Amino acid sequence: MNALQERIRREGRVLPGGIIKVDGFLNHRVDVKLLRELAQEFKKRFDLTGLTAVLTVEASGIALATVCAEEFGVPLVFAKKAKSDNIEGGLYHSDIFSYTYKKKVTLIVSSNWLGPNDKVLIVDDFLANGEALRGLVEIVEEAGAEMIGIGIAIEKGFQPGGQKLREKGIHLESVAIIESADETGIRFRGE
Amino acid sequence: MNALQERIRREGRVLPGGIIKVDGFLNHRVDVKLLRELAQEFKKRFDLTGLTAVLTVEASGIALATVCAEEFGVPLVFAKKAKSDNIEGGLYHSDIFSYTYKKKVTLIVSSNWLGPNDKVLIVDDFLANGEALRGLVEIVEEAGAEMIGIGIAIEKGFQPGGQKLREKGIHLESVAIIESADETGIRFRGE
Repeated sequence: MNALQERIRREGRVLPGGIIKVDGFLNHRVDVKLLRELAQEFKKRFDLTGLTAVLTVEASGIALATVCAEEFGVPLVFAKKAKSDNIEGGLYHSDIFSYTYKKKVTLIVSSNWLGPNDKVLIVDDFLANGEALRGLVEIVEEAGAEMIGIGIAIEKGFQPGGQKLREKGIHLESVAIIESADETGIRFRGE
Repeated sequence: MNALQERIRREGRVLPGGIIKVDGFLNHRVDVKLLRELAQEFKKRFDLTGLTAVLTVEASGIALATVCAEEFGVPLVFAKKAKSDNIEGGLYHSDIFSYTYKKKVTLIVSSNWLGPNDKVLIVDDFLANGEALRGLVEIVEEAGAEMIGIGIAIEKGFQPGGQKLREKGIHLESVAIIESADETGIRFRGE
């Protein structure tokens, strides 16, 4: 059992509907030392030769992706949700369904900051249905950039996102894959 | 002129309406090495004795606040905007007006992760009208926590946020204060 799995078992809480709350160390209050360990773990699991950027999507993915970008020595690029006044022309975009907000959301990345010469690792804190990641993969394709793979902190293995991405041949690495979670406890893949 | 000011002058772009675009290194693509320098600068400018957390608000503040939290050896807490299904009861909240999205937004922080024993530094990438920061200050007060001050990367000195916060007696430090920005160029406070 790795450090993240231990932390999930110790501090995570399971709510009805398969919701796993890890907001004490990952996505509301954030243990940045743990993020550094995750970044180092991704460094072992991916060949990062030629990497030019870490790509994630706002909001909760930004913390982990920031530490990864620093650990790998490249800039971070984060996709924004919907259009704000502060982003102008030249956008890659992808429509996804947000299960958190129960509505369609458009992910956007400026074409100034991603292009055919880029080689990116996508990073996010959570993978469940995989909609946000599908959107990021589409944006990488639209930009003509190369994708090394996807690094995830926690994957909910009982939801379909991980399987869909792996079936596409994407190199997906999740540090903790939760196979089941209910009132009896949390079981990780491989246990 | 410090490193951030140099970077703004070299790479920032001024758009009509006083919008200063720094999305190539601060809030879309992010230069994480620069964030580390900013965190070290805040360490010089604030007495961080007894600090228990860095507080920011999603989304673009998270990158800088993550690096600050790691630099200072404390967790990061980020306020969320509006209610998602993944946050339950026990919330501090503050209503602000978002000039980016031109609508009211509610900032929320779980009372599990901020309380009377906390001593926080608030961090954000940008200060213009100061609405987001007013909301964070209210949340700190609501929690009964102590606030050391507010650390900002870029303050738009020609908008009222900074003055309002300083008039309240808050220790506010902005690494670059833009006094004016138009087609003739960018002038920083103190130049």
